[in-house]
Amino acid sequence: MSDSTRPALHESPIPGLFVVDLDLRGDNRGWFKENWQREKMLPIGLPDFGPVQNNVSFNDEVGTTRGIHAEPWDKFVSVVHGRVFGAWVDLREGSSFGTVFTVEIGPETAVFVPRGVGNAYQTLEPNTVYSYLVNDHWSPDAGAKYTFLNLADETAAIDWPIPLDDAVLSDKDRAHPRLAEVRPMPARKT
Amino acid sequence: MSDSTRPALHESPIPGLFVVDLDLRGDNRGWFKENWQREKMLPIGLPDFGPVQNNVSFNDEVGTTRGIHAEPWDKFVSVVHGRVFGAWVDLREGSSFGTVFTVEIGPETAVFVPRGVGNAYQTLEPNTVYSYLVNDHWSPDAGAKYTFLNLADETAAIDWPIPLDDAVLSDKDRAHPRLAEVRPMPARKT
Ligand SMILES: Cc1cn([C@H]2C[C@H](O)[C@@H](COP(=O)(O)OP(=O)(O)O[C@H]3OC[C@@H](O)[C@H](O)[C@H]3O)O2)c(=O)[nH]c1=O
Ligand SMILES: Cc1cn([C@H]2C[C@H](O)[C@@H](COP(=O)(O)OP(=O)(O)O[C@H]3OC[C@@H](O)[C@H](O)[C@H]3O)O2)c(=O)[nH]c1=O
Repeated sequence: MSDSTRPALHESPIPGLFVVDLDLRGDNRGWFKENWQREKMLPIGLPDFGPVQNNVSFNDEVGTTRGIHAEPWDKFVSVVHGRVFGAWVDLREGSSFGTVFTVEIGPETAVFVPRGVGNAYQTLEPNTVYSYLVNDHWSPDAGAKYTFLNLADETAAIDWPIPLDDAVLSDKDRAHPRLAEVRPMPARKT
Repeated sequence: MSDSTRPALHESPIPGLFVVDLDLRGDNRGWFKENWQREKMLPIGLPDFGPVQNNVSFNDEVGTTRGIHAEPWDKFVSVVHGRVFGAWVDLREGSSFGTVFTVEIGPETAVFVPRGVGNAYQTLEPNTVYSYLVNDHWSPDAGAKYTFLNLADETAAIDWPIPLDDAVLSDKDRAHPRLAEVRPMPARKT
């Protein structure tokens, strides 16, 4: 057991979206992980994103599906119990608009999602807990103005492990528009 | 359902240790919570503690017990799955040294633990996941120098729901000193 293990970073087809392998340290009690660690994650290439909010969602059933939500902030997403099929669609204006990336994530993986990239997941186990850090504050008014894409969009054509007809969704998520109706998220003013 | 709900803060017998009631929003999928939210938590009285690390520990069995660990940083602790009996002992030098506080916590409660206060918990359900934010970086060398107290200390006399003889502990935690042998953590230089 080395105490100097570094998390490993992997690129994805979506610019700025990274997959991070975390070090799960098992023992007689269970396991321990550094889910996010600024000092180790900046040198491997994660931006210094400065989280101000930590959100947690709990999902009773297999096939619970949430998304596709693009907001004006970055997200560092992870699973703390169970497993999910994660799916992302680039909704930023520009040449990468519409690019799709999917990966299965459990407690040993985290994903850094840059602002403007649509985020979604489907649970593969019951009692799955999803936890994420964001670098700006959500508000109900702002929430109405974010960029959303329908989970069933035919262009993105995400290959959900559990067909959406058998999945648990919110009414809000059933009503999101198709890709052709999405207004791309403008680049951040610098 | 109001979207302007504020988390509520409660004091404890340990100066600077606060219990926070979180707003769990249930729906057909499960629940959602803002586990930590800087903009809402500063006005209710939490310090602007600036987390740089998020740690998660998973515990298979009921009665898994971890602690008592006081480190030179603040912790914002919460349970994201399951339930724990939380116990804290003030190990800072000064008149509050040795003060004990315990409370049961599930996903609807978080606890802000100031630096120098010993932190411990015992799981009350299988597959309990504990998640916490800290405002300085752990390192293996620094870890050797923290202030520890034995979970079975007779002076603190924590009334563990599962007797420690039947509990799952690490060998390291079995070896911590009694209160009389603890070197109190000095106040932070300002
Ligand atoms: C995002 C958010 C939501 N809420 C409230 C609003 C609802 O009452 C409840 C659930 O919100 P939803 O938007 O339905 O949650 P969900 O569908 O899970 O989507 C959230 O998690 C996945 C994220 O991708 C997405 O951005 C975020 O909106 O929580 C808050 O109180 N604070 C928040 O930060
Ligand atoms: C705290 C910490 C630990 N580790 C490693 C060291 C061990 O290989 C493994 C488990 O560490 P322990 O100290 O045995 O964990 P635990 O007994 O759960 O205590 C931790 O969680 C409860 C906290 O109160 C305590 O401060 C913290 O040390 O993880 C890390 O890699 N990074 C860390 O930040």
